[in-house]
Amino acid sequence: MSNKDNLPKENEKEKEKEKENKIEEKEEEVKQVVTTTKVVAGKEGVDYVKIVEEFGMQLITDPMIEKMGKLSKTPLHHWIKRGLFFSHRNLDQLLDKYEKGEPFYLYTGRGPSSESMHLGHLIPFMMTKWLQDAFGCPCVIQLTDDEKFLWNPKLTLEKVHQFMIENAKDIIACGFDPEKTFIFSDMNYIGEMYPNICKIRKILTFNQVRSTFGFTKSSNIGQIAFSAVQAAPAFSSSFPKLFADKKKVNCLIPCAVDQDPYFRLTRDIAPKLKEKKPSLMCSKFIPSLLGLNEKMSSSNPNSAIFLTDTPNQIRNKINKYAFSGGGDTIEEHRKNGANLKVDIPFHYLKIFHPDQERIEQIRKDYGSGQMLTGEVKKELISILQDIVKKHQENRKAITDEVLQKFMTPRQLV
Amino acid sequence: MSNKDNLPKENEKEKEKEKENKIEEKEEEVKQVVTTTKVVAGKEGVDYVKIVEEFGMQLITDPMIEKMGKLSKTPLHHWIKRGLFFSHRNLDQLLDKYEKGEPFYLYTGRGPSSESMHLGHLIPFMMTKWLQDAFGCPCVIQLTDDEKFLWNPKLTLEKVHQFMIENAKDIIACGFDPEKTFIFSDMNYIGEMYPNICKIRKILTFNQVRSTFGFTKSSNIGQIAFSAVQAAPAFSSSFPKLFADKKKVNCLIPCAVDQDPYFRLTRDIAPKLKEKKPSLMCSKFIPSLLGLNEKMSSSNPNSAIFLTDTPNQIRNKINKYAFSGGGDTIEEHRKNGANLKVDIPFHYLKIFHPDQERIEQIRKDYGSGQMLTGEVKKELISILQDIVKKHQENRKAITDEVLQKFMTPRQLV
Repeated sequence: MSNKDNLPKENEKEKEKEKENKIEEKEEEVKQVVTTTKVVAGKEGVDYVKIVEEFGMQLITDPMIEKMGKLSKTPLHHWIKRGLFFSHRNLDQLLDKYEKGEPFYLYTGRGPSSESMHLGHLIPFMMTKWLQDAFGCPCVIQLTDDEKFLWNPKLTLEKVHQFMIENAKDIIACGFDPEKTFIFSDMNYIGEMYPNICKIRKILTFNQVRSTFGFTKSSNIGQIAFSAVQAAPAFSSSFPKLFADKKKVNCLIPCAVDQDPYFRLTRDIAPKLKEKKPSLMCSKFIPSLLGLNEKMSSSNPNSAIFLTDTPNQIRNKINKYAFSGGGDTIEEHRKNGANLKVDIPFHYLKIFHPDQERIEQIRKDYGSGQMLTGEVKKELISILQDIVKKHQENRKAITDEVLQKFMTPRQLV
Repeated sequence: MSNKDNLPKENEKEKEKEKENKIEEKEEEVKQVVTTTKVVAGKEGVDYVKIVEEFGMQLITDPMIEKMGKLSKTPLHHWIKRGLFFSHRNLDQLLDKYEKGEPFYLYTGRGPSSESMHLGHLIPFMMTKWLQDAFGCPCVIQLTDDEKFLWNPKLTLEKVHQFMIENAKDIIACGFDPEKTFIFSDMNYIGEMYPNICKIRKILTFNQVRSTFGFTKSSNIGQIAFSAVQAAPAFSSSFPKLFADKKKVNCLIPCAVDQDPYFRLTRDIAPKLKEKKPSLMCSKFIPSLLGLNEKMSSSNPNSAIFLTDTPNQIRNKINKYAFSGGGDTIEEHRKNGANLKVDIPFHYLKIFHPDQERIEQIRKDYGSGQMLTGEVKKELISILQDIVKKHQENRKAITDEVLQKFMTPRQLV
């Protein structure tokens, strides 16, 4: 199977569509805001080209995708081929080094803000799991229970601990290699990272973090000091037990693009600490069921498909809430086709449908009005039900012993 | 032996002298500054009554001293009787509770800023050791290696670790009970305290710590967040392994008065955390050999007697540098006597001479001009040589195993 061949083409298409979107959005004067705590987008979604420019990142290019396909031990993931992971920092150099025999480790994470994760939360972990298999990488996964506690006035440490444990199980269910993966909560692991955290804090002033994260004088001092906790795992020296023999290992961070400010800062300070700058690989957001102008959100159950949803719940949510770009009447739809740019079911299919040819067929048939919203939704429902069901089965198999193993600091292979 | 009887009287004398000093200093318009990082005093020393008023503390009263003497299992320490420990917060309530059978633990500490400690550094530890014996208390001693690293641009983690180890040995040499004492470095122990540290940080804003500690926007984020690390040990819940059975234990903090701002803040936030407010017992500073208007300082070797000084070094320092209040000529001295208010040898004798009657004799004879500076210095030299020699002998006996025991988190008796 040669998945690799046709994919730069797919990516090309996505990019053209983005350019179109961008031009139209400019005309509408949409004010887009993407920070580590807020995402505000126009009604046709986030302008990712603009983000890349503003953040000073680079787009993942077709030659890079081809190279990843060549170096990978497993078929290229469709999220790379389709440009869901679209921007990067220094990924090209990392791949060059890998080609020359220099290994790297993966670092990703999550703030455990609620017990039940949704599909959007899963994206970086599924990507990271693929990267682990593809490049044989050790992987560290940070659960920032401290962060969530510091930012949410109502959250207790007991509650966030419970979220952390439940989230860890969902993450393990993505299929990480127990011999190569260390999952840690800041609350449990801070001690080992503390020397690096102090080194990082020493060179960051209030002014610097204020401008990056928008703090005020009323921000609590835990928030102000937190960025160092998220930066530390990007340096392999924060894991003395994991990387016993090799002191400085290259790091690749797969994450949603709103986390870039943390790692821009991390990259800025790396040379001062005589550490390697981590590479980044960033994803777009999974939009809310309700429309392209927001992210899936745990606080609105109807905006997202949760990993705990039953098949019925998934069907009802898609049928009832997934924003349709189809015509108001069947006649109108048959005549004008669906507006694919704003259609959530089609957008989700582009992410979750494994078969690119089928996506192209739907793009044609639904875009022309030949296929109806109900039919597209039905296809999406079945795919999402499958993904969630499989996840739930995997999760059920995770015992406390398995969890314990993943969360114990130990030498990774 | 009834040391207790004559001591309120001694304290009375000190207080009268302080009042005199205060009046004179006001006439001179001395601008006194006492913060956690700076002490600036007039040429006749720090105005402690003013500090107590400014900080909102209370003076330790004679009835309190009498009560301590009554409750103590050992003879009352002369530093309490002589008012070297002069101010407090809630010490009276703590003693009342102790009398009713409620135990307390002791918490003190040090920032390991250099390898060799001086006599001034030893004061809180010697007082704490006495309190441990007198009231049978468990004791925790914090070495803030992180603080010193964050504040000193040139200090490396390796260097501050070395200082921490050397300082820990000097502290143990004060005679702490190995079954009742836990010495910890933040760099090693931060993990266990981190839940409490996060709770504290969550309720402290940049504005609050800025006004207390004088931070600016260019302060590093480690400094800004540090106060929580010094506050946490004042709550017994920060030591789950030490106080396994009794969750909330009263805390008494013996320290130099410049550390009060940390604990004022700690007491302010205690109710919000449903923790007990720690009690405080604060000492005056040991002045520099060079004069009353500064503290002993590690950065000027001639300003202090170090615990590593040889008998010869002690003799030379006192003879050469200890600021004398004696007359410029013998004739003048015999006629006018010594100015005891600014005389450093007499000031040191008042702290370190064990015999109160002898101090009174010297006060009379030296103050009248009958005794010469050289004679007073000779008596001081002999006393300091003895203290330092005994300390050095104690320290020599401290093996790595002993150090290890003190620094291992474990249930205290």
